[in-house]
Parts: sequence; structure tokens; C-alpha cells
Amino acid sequence: MTQSGITIGIIGSQGRMGQALAQAIEAAGCVLAGGVDRDGDVAALAAKSDALVDFSSPDALAANLAAARTAQIPILIGTTGFDDNHHALIDDAARDIAVLQTGNTSLGVTLLAHLVEEAASRLGDDWDIEIVEMHHRMKVDAPSGTALLLGEAAAKGRDIALSENTESGRDGHTGKRQQGAIGFAALRGGTVAGDHSVLFAGEQERITLSHSAENRMIFANGAVKGANWLIGKPAGRYTMAQVLGL
Amino acid sequence: MTQSGITIGIIGSQGRMGQALAQAIEAAGCVLAGGVDRDGDVAALAAKSDALVDFSSPDALAANLAAARTAQIPILIGTTGFDDNHHALIDDAARDIAVLQTGNTSLGVTLLAHLVEEAASRLGDDWDIEIVEMHHRMKVDAPSGTALLLGEAAAKGRDIALSENTESGRDGHTGKRQQGAIGFAALRGGTVAGDHSVLFAGEQERITLSHSAENRMIFANGAVKGANWLIGKPAGRYTMAQVLGL
Amino acid sequence: MTQSGITIGIIGSQGRMGQALAQAIEAAGCVLAGGVDRDGDVAALAAKSDALVDFSSPDALAANLAAARTAQIPILIGTTGFDDNHHALIDDAARDIAVLQTGNTSLGVTLLAHLVEEAASRLGDDWDIEIVEMHHRMKVDAPSGTALLLGEAAAKGRDIALSENTESGRDGHTGKRQQGAIGFAALRGGTVAGDHSVLFAGEQERITLSHSAENRMIFANGAVKGANWLIGKPAGRYTMAQVLGL
Amino acid sequence: MTQSGITIGIIGSQGRMGQALAQAIEAAGCVLAGGVDRDGDVAALAAKSDALVDFSSPDALAANLAAARTAQIPILIGTTGFDDNHHALIDDAARDIAVLQTGNTSLGVTLLAHLVEEAASRLGDDWDIEIVEMHHRMKVDAPSGTALLLGEAAAKGRDIALSENTESGRDGHTGKRQQGAIGFAALRGGTVAGDHSVLFAGEQERITLSHSAENRMIFANGAVKGANWLIGKPAGRYTMAQVLGL
Repeated sequence: MTQSGITIGIIGSQGRMGQALAQAIEAAGCVLAGGVDRDGDVAALAAKSDALVDFSSPDALAANLAAARTAQIPILIGTTGFDDNHHALIDDAARDIAVLQTGNTSLGVTLLAHLVEEAASRLGDDWDIEIVEMHHRMKVDAPSGTALLLGEAAAKGRDIALSENTESGRDGHTGKRQQGAIGFAALRGGTVAGDHSVLFAGEQERITLSHSAENRMIFANGAVKGANWLIGKPAGRYTMAQVLGL
Repeated sequence: MTQSGITIGIIGSQGRMGQALAQAIEAAGCVLAGGVDRDGDVAALAAKSDALVDFSSPDALAANLAAARTAQIPILIGTTGFDDNHHALIDDAARDIAVLQTGNTSLGVTLLAHLVEEAASRLGDDWDIEIVEMHHRMKVDAPSGTALLLGEAAAKGRDIALSENTESGRDGHTGKRQQGAIGFAALRGGTVAGDHSVLFAGEQERITLSHSAENRMIFANGAVKGANWLIGKPAGRYTMAQVLGL
Repeated sequence: MTQSGITIGIIGSQGRMGQALAQAIEAAGCVLAGGVDRDGDVAALAAKSDALVDFSSPDALAANLAAARTAQIPILIGTTGFDDNHHALIDDAARDIAVLQTGNTSLGVTLLAHLVEEAASRLGDDWDIEIVEMHHRMKVDAPSGTALLLGEAAAKGRDIALSENTESGRDGHTGKRQQGAIGFAALRGGTVAGDHSVLFAGEQERITLSHSAENRMIFANGAVKGANWLIGKPAGRYTMAQVLGL
Repeated sequence: MTQSGITIGIIGSQGRMGQALAQAIEAAGCVLAGGVDRDGDVAALAAKSDALVDFSSPDALAANLAAARTAQIPILIGTTGFDDNHHALIDDAARDIAVLQTGNTSLGVTLLAHLVEEAASRLGDDWDIEIVEMHHRMKVDAPSGTALLLGEAAAKGRDIALSENTESGRDGHTGKRQQGAIGFAALRGGTVAGDHSVLFAGEQERITLSHSAENRMIFANGAVKGANWLIGKPAGRYTMAQVLGL
């Protein structure tokens, strides 16, 4: 699938995902152009890469996008925790280069999101949607980027805006559940690579659509596949569903 | 949705489903034409019904179909445990009257089967499919009719024949799993109304699509909805997906 | 187990639990003394009851306890959402009458709490404890009383104070999980009677201890069993574990 | 915990567990004495080892025990698929050397078995016990050794013989569930390292006790811990519960 000789640079190379990416780049027959972290020279890395993969932090986004634009190479962004300003930066860069930003790079999650959208479009809002995820004890934000991605898929299926229909982190006197809300809950512990469930709870029956990752190599493999797919694509903002032909 | 004054007859009226059906008929604003069991006169019941709902046993199928044909009324069949001969009887009757035979009459399961077919069509056979179900301690057959229905959906998505790709009831020295097989496992206990999970197990990741019924009223309500929908339809064999517009 | 002729009064008789309690009282061969709600005369009810069962609201606690003391009868309290002041009221009443306050009246949950305490006492705090629960869409508080009861069992097993080690309702930038914390998450939707899971997440392995209620009759049956058991007991504060001989 | 300089020999060194054991021996600060497989010289390996760890096959058991006896060193046996004759061989060897045979070497499963026994001893046989497990597609036997170990724990808690109360691999017309039976079901697929659930299904409620392994290092680490613990122990047959002080 992937062309030999392709060089890929890793932003956030010392993190857990960074190390998995280095393995995945080798496994895919590509060449590791190098890696940078908080204090590294991302522009120099971009200059010697055919594509960048970014699993760093929201703070570094602007610099990472600028480096990719200067080098005129595509960038796949798997960092989570972005706000509207970050998304505006990405949209702006996507006028110039190919960008793929995603909360999850695995084949399984990409398919799950597709099924969640389908289920949400078929079931009325008398079926309550809840999303629960579990990750390892070191994760610092909640809900996970993948949980939000699944929430967006559900909201799209229902033709509503997620931001106006979210109930997250229930605690204390919450009152009754709002009709049409999409709920989020986050579990943290151990070394869990990532489990996600989307529940549709109706009148005396329940449908649950889940994904479980045994380890983070599935995300690294998917990210490298995505970075390869981006090479040569026109400027624009792409999705994992496109990479996987869903 | 349902017209008032519609009369529905129950075959298998003393069983658990029969009692739930009587409630569901009333809840839907229909009229209970009556019920028969092993020794009852199904022809007399058919003569005073606008539609029949059959949750009895495979042995009674021929007589039940004959009664519906004589009365020229539709029949919804929720009995499980049929073999090829039974299906041939149903196909034959469907040349004459409207027949809907299904392993599960709930909205949730009907949607789940749709999602399972979709997932199976998207994932290669390096994703192993397993179906596990749990029912109450009184259930006498395994796998459940619903598990088989979900297996058929998976097989259809993969474009293979379920009958040639089944591994059911593993016990002892089984050898390695066959590539492309669809596995079945059955749990029995307590008062469980019906839980089903379809697992897609890939390389270091898993997708699980599940349905859980809190009690059997969901099946009774769906069956009555189906029986109403059948009234006035031309002869033929119909599905719950059609009833629900999926 | 229960003596015939015993009369039991229900506080909160119009709620879902109240209706289930009326059925459970009859099923146990007891007599329903009557029921009161927000505006009812609880003192009059107490005067004609051998025991009270209270599934009302924290606001009504003081009046309910006063009525039981005046009538010198025991009271089983299944209301949730109490704070320290409420517990002080209960402790005070327990000097005078037999009181059993519990977040959950089922046999299964009572055993589960026992197993959670045992597991927590055996595993070091490198095993992270998370408690997740799901209830129907009408529930107004989170975490559930049962989730807190299970959290108390875990804290007791570890010999720590739950109040100082709780992480509940994660949302936004949470930072890393605190060593030794007990996490809570709440899902709401559909008609779910009550599902609870306690997860112990260690290094590359996980233990999960769960309870699932099919409907609320299990709570009503347990509450009636508890109320019968309380009759004739000396003043004091009792537990469901004692009722069930665990 | 483990002493440096201890040498451990692996029987079944080329299998997946064998490779994990080599890592675990190094991680524990021990020395790998070497490894043998189907055609290797186990007596020579025993002569240079302080303890043996055996994850080979039932066929090799007699030779492995003989080698350990000749060398007068302890042996930990994690092979599964033994019958009564194999257990007689182990009992015989245990008169001469320290032997630990177990279906599962993880801390989590050992604790789970303890909780299962406790739950089974507290709940009457109106609570149906079912054990379901999932393993990767290469596993050749069912139920897993761990599932049987958990079944033995349940049977012990109930004070019955597992062999006379097993329902495994339900398929076809099974009839009603037998009162007091312990059911087994096996799922196979993907790369699952090992998931086990023990369900107690009662009247309208369910308790589930589960263990999930993210990868097989937990088994290798526990096996090495067990082998170290056995060194210096008197002849006899030991358990993982003893190793872990449960």
C-alpha cells in the first residue's frame, strides 16, 4: 500500500504514540525522517520529510502547521483537546496543504463512527445516546478525542449540533436527562489503550456499539497509512473515512 | 399507527410470549380475537381474526399456515427452531397469503441486524465474527433464533452462506478457528429476556454490536405492529425491516 | 420468612418504587397499611403500621423519622441524595428506634459490595478503582446511591476515606488520575432499572465486578424483606448485609 | 521479590508464551537457563536450572516431570488440556518435588477465582452460573484452562463436583437448563489475550465477575514469580493463591 522511500517526520516523538509511530513507520516500509518534541526544530524536520504526523499538544499546533506549509507537505494531526480557534487554524492551513485532523486513526473506530451515524439517523430521539470511554491513568483530558468524534457522528446522524446537546461529567443534582441530549462519561485507570461504547437506550431495550483497542499500535499503523495517503493530495481537509474508503 | 377494531388471534397463547401479546394487542388498541394452544382449534380462531400471530412450536407450523390460508388472512410467525422443510412450507404459503417469519420482532434487533450486515460488508475476513447470546433458564434451543438472524445478516454482508461457515458450541479439542467462520455461543440463566452481541475481532482491536432486551414486551409490541402492517398486503414473504421502513 | 398480618406503610407511594413496594408487600403476604406522599400525614400512617418503608426525598427525612419515633416502629430508608446533616438525623433516631438506611436493597448488590470490599483489600493502590452506573432518564442525581455504597465498600477495603479520594464527573482538562482515587461516572437513558460496575484496572489486566437489575421489583422485594427483619429489633442502625446474613 | 542469579529453564520456549517468559525472566532479574521444545533435551535443561516453567503440551508432561525429579528442582506447569491421568502424574511427582500446576498464572485471575468461590458459596443454586471466555483465533481447545479453573472455584463454593454439573458448548435442542449446572461457552477471534466472565443469573438480577488481560505478559510475569516462590519449598502441590498470599 505504502511506497518505499517515503520519509515521515514525527512531532511528539518521545510520547507513547511517538514511539509507536516509529515502529509503524518501519513496519510500513517507510523511512523515519526524524522526530521533534517540545523544544525541537519542527521546520527543519518538515524540510526533510514527505509528510508529518503530529501527536503533540494543542499549544504546538500553530508552529506545526506553519512548518508544513513552508515545506509544502501534508500533515496528519492526531493531537486531541482542540477548541474552535485551533480548528480555525487547521481550516486556514487546509487552503494551502492537505491536512487530516482526527480524534482517532484506527480502522475500527472509523467504521464505528459510520455505524453510530447510521443508527442515530434511524432511531428517534426517544432513544437516549450515551458515550462512555476508558483510557489509561495518564490521560489528562476528558472526554477523549475519540468520544467526541463519536458524538459528532451521532449528532450528524440526528441532524443536530453536538455543542448544544451535550451532557458531560454528570455529578450532583443533575435533574432529569434532557430530551435529545448526547451524554459523555470518562473512566480512567491502569494501562487501557482505549475502550469506547455508544449506547442507544430506548423503551425497555438498548443497542450498544463498542470499540476496544488492545494497544496503541492500531492508532500508529492507521496514522502512517493516513500520512501516506495524503501525499500528493490537493490542499484541503480530509478524514480517516476517506483514507479507508468508507 | 394501528387501526382500531382490528382483531388478532394468538397461537401459543399460554406461553410467556402469548401473555405478553395479549397485553400488546390491548395496548395497540386492537381486539384480541382469542388464543389457542397445542390442542386448540386454530381454524376457528383464524375464521374470526384479521391476522394471526404465531409463537407456538415448529410442529404446529403446517396446521397454522393452513388455517391462515383457508381464512385468507396474514400470519406473523415468531416461533424459532425451523429447518429447511419448515421454510419450504412458509415459502409455499407465501404464494397465497402475506407471511412474515422472523427470529426477532423488536425494533432494536432489526436495526442491529442492519448494522451487522453493514459492518460485515466493510471488514475483511481477517476480522473474525462471533455471536454470543444469553437467555433465561427455560429456553430449550441454541443458538437463539435472533442469534441466527444476526448470523444471516453477517453472512449476507460477507456474501457467504451461513450454513457452510458456522462454528457453534465449541467444546473440547476444536483446533484453530477457521478463516471466515461465524461463531455462535449460548448462555442460559435466570430470567434474562434476551441479550445478543456480535463481535468483530481484528488485529489488536475489536468492534462489538449488542442488543439487550429488558423484558419481552418489546417483542410482543413489535409483533403486533407487524401483524397490523401485514393486513391488506399482497401474498408474499415479508421482513421486520420492511415493517419498520429500514 | 415474613409473618402474615404485618402491616407496612409506604412513604413515597406514588413514585415508581412506591408502586413496586405495594406489589412486593402483597407478594410477601404482608398488609399494606397505606401510603403517603409530599402532602400526606406520615404520623397517621405510622400510627397504623408495624414498619415504614421510605423512598421519598431528603427533604422529608426529618418528618419521617419523627413519625417513626412517635409510633415507636422501625423504618427502612431507601431514599438517596443524603448529606452529612441527614446522616446525623438518622444516627440520632437510631438511638430510639431500629433504622436501616441503604443505597440499595437488592440481594445482588449487597453481595457485590461485599466482594468489592474484599477485592479492594487484596489489591494495592496500583490497581485503579472506577465505578460506573447507568439508570433511566428520569433519575435526577449522580452518582447513584448504590454507586456511592459500592465506593464506600471499596474505600473500606483499602482503609481510606471515600470523601477524600473521589474523582467524579470528569470533564475538560482533568490532569492525570490521582493515585488511590476512586472514580465515578454516571450514564442516563431509557428505562434502565440500574446497572453498576466496579473496575479494578491494573498493569495490563482488569477485574470488573458488576450488577444488573432487570427491573425495580428486586429493590422492592428486598426492602419489604428488610422492613420485616427490622420489626422487633432493638434501637440501632442496621445494614442490608445483616438482613441477608452476609 | 526475586533473587538475582536464579536460573530458570523454559519448556515450550518457541511458543508465544515461551517468548513472553524469556522477557519476564529478564525483567525479574533472573537468568534464562535456556529453552527446549518438542525435540529438545529437557533433562539437560533441568540440570542447569534452579526451576522449570512448562508451557508445552500434555504429551510432554511425563518427560518434563521426570527431568525435574532427576534434577530435584521445582516445576511450574501452565500447560492446559490435562485429563485425570495427567493429574495423577503430577500428584505422583509432587511427593518428590515442589509442583505448581495452574490454568492461569495472573494475579487478577487468581483473585477472581477467590471472589467466584465466595459468591458461589453465598448464593443459592437458584442463581445460575455461566462462564464465558474469549481468546485469539489460534487457540485449539475449549473451554480455556482458566475457564475450568473458575468453574472449579464456583463448584468448590457450592460444594459440588464440577465434572457432574457441567453444561458446555450448547448447540441444537438442549432442553431447559439443569438446576445447579455450571455452563461454559467459548468465543474465538482476533488477537484477544484472554477475557473471562463468570455470571450469576438470578431472579431479575445478575452479578458478573470478569477479568480481561491486555496481553500475555501478565501470565509470564506471574509464572516467573511463581517459579521463584517454589524454589526451596518442600515437595508438594502448590497453588497460585499461595504464591500471592491470598
